Amino acid sequence: MIVTVTPNPAIDITYHLAGLEPGQVNRIDQVRERPGGKGINVARVLHQLGERVVATGLSGGRGGSTLAAALVDAGIPVDFVEVLPEIRRTVVVHEQDGTTTSLWEPGWSPADPAAAADALTGRIGNLLERARAVVISGSLPKGLDPRLPTRIASAAAVAGVPVVVDVNGEALSLAAGTGGAVLAPNSEEAAAMFGGTNQGTPDAIVHAVRRLVGRHGRIPAVILTLGADGIVAVLPTGALIARPPEVVNGNPTGAGDAVSAALARHLAVAGSYTGVDWRAALADAVALSASAVRRPVAGEIDRDAYLAWRDEITVEELCP
Amino acid sequence: MIVTVTPNPAIDITYHLAGLEPGQVNRIDQVRERPGGKGINVARVLHQLGERVVATGLSGGRGGSTLAAALVDAGIPVDFVEVLPEIRRTVVVHEQDGTTTSLWEPGWSPADPAAAADALTGRIGNLLERARAVVISGSLPKGLDPRLPTRIASAAAVAGVPVVVDVNGEALSLAAGTGGAVLAPNSEEAAAMFGGTNQGTPDAIVHAVRRLVGRHGRIPAVILTLGADGIVAVLPTGALIARPPEVVNGNPTGAGDAVSAALARHLAVAGSYTGVDWRAALADAVALSASAVRRPVAGEIDRDAYLAWRDEITVEELCP
Repeated sequence: MIVTVTPNPAIDITYHLAGLEPGQVNRIDQVRERPGGKGINVARVLHQLGERVVATGLSGGRGGSTLAAALVDAGIPVDFVEVLPEIRRTVVVHEQDGTTTSLWEPGWSPADPAAAADALTGRIGNLLERARAVVISGSLPKGLDPRLPTRIASAAAVAGVPVVVDVNGEALSLAAGTGGAVLAPNSEEAAAMFGGTNQGTPDAIVHAVRRLVGRHGRIPAVILTLGADGIVAVLPTGALIARPPEVVNGNPTGAGDAVSAALARHLAVAGSYTGVDWRAALADAVALSASAVRRPVAGEIDRDAYLAWRDEITVEELCP
Repeated sequence: MIVTVTPNPAIDITYHLAGLEPGQVNRIDQVRERPGGKGINVARVLHQLGERVVATGLSGGRGGSTLAAALVDAGIPVDFVEVLPEIRRTVVVHEQDGTTTSLWEPGWSPADPAAAADALTGRIGNLLERARAVVISGSLPKGLDPRLPTRIASAAAVAGVPVVVDVNGEALSLAAGTGGAVLAPNSEEAAAMFGGTNQGTPDAIVHAVRRLVGRHGRIPAVILTLGADGIVAVLPTGALIARPPEVVNGNPTGAGDAVSAALARHLAVAGSYTGVDWRAALADAVALSASAVRRPVAGEIDRDAYLAWRDEITVEELCP
């Protein structure tokens, strides 16, 4: 079973409109509402691939009940810590010409952030007994200690369960300094972490990541998603790049979550970082990510496209 | 006690943004959420004036619980018929330059619209024993018989309780054909009802309304809100116009609901249409409406501005 951790979940509301008219009343014909937040997207992708998952994280309020009910209806077991007063919403407006405008509400904070962090760490501790892999994704509610993802990753490492950490900002920098975590930042986050490397070639990025890995010798893999350029894995044994099969147009939201899902799946099968077939894992990550871009909402994949693409991905060594 | 009827309530969500960037992720700093829908706005205005109100209508789902809890928290008793699967949302985006973009979800329908209409009529029947006035405002959920407002107005007429009907489309045309209702359409709705009269002068509008009243002799008053031009009352005894004290800039949403609130208040005091001091009622309606424009959200009034303005309103006879 794979545990996905979403510290700051959302209710995603999608509106479809012929065209958004600013300054006017826009009457919506079609509303879709679904559980959101990066960890939940990962859980939904894994569930579509037939993987057993449990979705945990922080939740609460009426929105929390809606979120849990929708996940359970979709066949995804939930085990959230109910400490948030409410769940944030993300409103996404899709226009016919493909323009997508998003309105992201700020997250809610628990009344006692330290107690919330303890409760979540405890809850995950219980789940680790049955877990084959853990994915921690997305932002933290305001007021939560940015060391929380690191703390969870360390607990998993002690239990011998591999982890994918896909966080940003200070939480990412801190996670980079701890053992047992596969990091999956995008190129902007990598730049913030390594210093401007998102402007460089993949080789330059690998060089920068290697310096980081050298400083923090215990990082088993750093995964960098470079959009249309593909995905780079910096490993103790070298660096690999997997390039996408073709230019895929669509909705990039959720592409990173599909990468996390693919990595978690391979880690769950291998049971460790060293046992992973990283070429296969990267090819899977690129194909699954591209298949997520084909779907209009985050957390969904085009399964046929994924199956067709995953054998066509080119994986090469970087800086041999 | 004044009963407000909201057949199609809403949860109003307000986002404040420096500037809305279409095609981008817009992070919202400040979210406000409150019960919405025209009848509920009327109840909130009346409550701010110290009137006893009961808010009824159709409701349901998790949104319905949120709506009821927020009204009760605000001190407004509720007596909704819980037959809707959910409550629609209206998202309003305010930009710093004053631009307001609204996204209105479609309303939800009850599983059995005829049974829902019967249940609401029955509920209002019980409330009529204690009611001094009834206000029926806003749209109907899809599938509901457009005769519902007329049916409620007729029940109130039989019970001797005066009614304000502020509906639109077919429901308005039907209500215009029944006794016992004061209508409060805006000029666009009047145009749809009377045929293009919103392009005319107040005199021309009164002329058109008189023709209508002549056809349906039992309408005790037709109230027309003409925005910055003021408010017209076409009465069996003549026609009056009340002009605003000054040009008031702000948020016009909810101005019409303030007019309904003012009329309901005067009807409640008089206990009948003929007993109303229409000059005072119109002056109150204009002042209250202008005081609502001063507030950024519908259902709120600037009480000081209202008190200062209401004695300054000019009320004149039209077509003497």
